[in-house]
Formats: sequence, C-alpha cells, structure tokens
Amino acid sequence: MLILGVDPGTVALGYGLVSAKGNAFSVLEYGVLPTVSEKKRQTPPPPVKIVSEDRSTGLLLKGIFQGIGDVISRYRPDVIAIEKLFLTRNTKSAMEVGQARGVVILAAAEADLSVVEFTPMQVKMAVTGYGKADKKQVQYMVRSLLGLEETPEPDDAADALAVAMCAQYQLASGIWRHA
Amino acid sequence: MLILGVDPGTVALGYGLVSAKGNAFSVLEYGVLPTVSEKKRQTPPPPVKIVSEDRSTGLLLKGIFQGIGDVISRYRPDVIAIEKLFLTRNTKSAMEVGQARGVVILAAAEADLSVVEFTPMQVKMAVTGYGKADKKQVQYMVRSLLGLEETPEPDDAADALAVAMCAQYQLASGIWRHA
Repeated sequence: MLILGVDPGTVALGYGLVSAKGNAFSVLEYGVLPTVSEKKRQTPPPPVKIVSEDRSTGLLLKGIFQGIGDVISRYRPDVIAIEKLFLTRNTKSAMEVGQARGVVILAAAEADLSVVEFTPMQVKMAVTGYGKADKKQVQYMVRSLLGLEETPEPDDAADALAVAMCAQYQLASGIWRHA
Repeated sequence: MLILGVDPGTVALGYGLVSAKGNAFSVLEYGVLPTVSEKKRQTPPPPVKIVSEDRSTGLLLKGIFQGIGDVISRYRPDVIAIEKLFLTRNTKSAMEVGQARGVVILAAAEADLSVVEFTPMQVKMAVTGYGKADKKQVQYMVRSLLGLEETPEPDDAADALAVAMCAQYQLASGIWRHA
C-alpha cells in the first residue's frame, strides 16, 4: 500500500509518501510546498483595503498542483490521505487552506485517485495512541515508526507522514476499506 | 475590456462573462457549475463520523477547473474578478468555498491571467449604489445594466455578472488599474 499523506497548513503544505505493509512503514519522500508567498508572509495586510490584481496566489497554487501532480505521477500512490482542519475562528485561514486543498483534490481527480480525510485527533490517536498529543509527541512517533535518524522537517512534512500512517492504521483496522 | 466574474457559493459556482466599454456592458455568457454533489446535498451528514474514500469532490472540482478553463480559452478575458466571501461562522463552508476558489485561481494562473477580488459590499455598492442592497435589488440592477429581458438565473450566475461589472466600475474610477 502506497499512501500520499498531505497536511495543508496556513504557511506550507506538507506531503509525505509512505509505503506500508501491515504495521511496517517506510518513507519514500517528503517535503513542503509554500502556500503563502514570501512577500505576503513578511508584509502585514494594509489597514485600508486596496484593490489590486493578484497573480501570486495563482502561482503558488500552480506550484502545489504541479508539485503534487509530479509526486503522484512518479510514485502512483494507491490513495491520498488529507488532514481535515477544524479551524474554529479564522475563516480567512480556512479559505486559504481550502484553496490549497482544492488544488490537491483536483490533482488526485486528474490522476483518478480517491481521497480519504482524517481529523487531527484521528491522526494523533493513530500515531501516538493519544488524541490530544502535542506536536513533539507526534514528531517523535513519526521518526520512530518510520525508523528515521532525524525528525522530518519542517513540521508540515512530519504531519503529512503522520496522516499517511493514520490512513494505513485505519485501513488495517477495517475502519475503511480501500476501494 | 472583457471580464470573467466568478461567485463561488456553497452549492454552485456562478460565472459570467461581461464585455465593458466605460459604463456600457454586454453579457457574452453566464452559467453555474456545481460545487456540491446532488447526493451530498440531499443526504444529511451521518451523526457518527464515517471514514470513507471520496471521489465526488474531486470530480466536482475537475468540472469547475475544466468549465472555467473552457470559458477562459474560448473568450480570453482580460481579468478574472472573484467575490471574496466573509463567512463569519461556518469554517466548513469556508473550506469548501475555498476549494472551489482554489481551482478557479489555478485555472487563471494556467492561462496567465490575474485575479482581482471584491467583497460582497463592494459589489453591491458598485451595482446598486448601496452596500447593503438585498439580492432582489442586485438582480434587478444586473438585468437593467446588462439590458436583459429576464433576470439571469440562478442567483449565483447573476452575482457573478455583478462581480464582473463591479470590476469594470472600479477600473473606470481608477481604484485599480489593469496591469
């Protein structure tokens, strides 16, 4: 089973490709793709709303679409597992994360792949056994389960690998069946 | 000036292509693309979270990507104007609307087009002169400004045409300049 895990965050989208046999995992590739331009990250939004044409968001989304499409075509994963975010307050962030998610789901559809979603709590539960585990605990378990010498960085990449392993655990436990 | 207006809603994404010379408008095409599958619309979400693979969202996003891409390649608009939503409460809706937006912005980037965004208040202000106009007032003005015999339907298509006209008004008044 080859699973592409994706964690779309507010600054970067993490991805990680995991090969799984039962509870044995190996990592094939991981990385991040930016979701916010360097300029936007450094410049606070203007107090007065200025109407301006934007190409940077499109270029970032194009980068994600091509990056994920490239990983898909190189490895042909069986399924894509995406972390489902529950951002309770910030609808602006939800919108931006949604844009990146949309492009990933589109890349999956273009490759005729199905998508399975997990909440952060499901991911933490699967990887650490505790649904409210903190970031460090998740990272420690990702490193341990994948037999890596160092913790995958940045966080978004480690989270993406955790999502992929969560998918395998859910599959192995019969909570979902791969179609 | 050829403007493609887009209104990404929670059920359908409206689009409308408007040709503008000063304050004179003509409509070339309008329509809607679904953002929620018929099944999802009719079936309430299960009380217990079931993990299942999903292809339907991908197919819908593919439909939007191809539909908007097709309109872009047939008309080669100068710019795409998208309504910016401020959903204050529902982050799930914001996420879904974001996914559709992401695919539209990607389609724009693939065609090397820039995107300009307007808030609902800016759109209402531009079309009716009143930032808190209701749906009927907006629809009446869309029909009147475009010299149509009937109000464009559904609402999302009428809203998309309003967004396109808002862009032209903002351009004509020098609030933004087309790059």
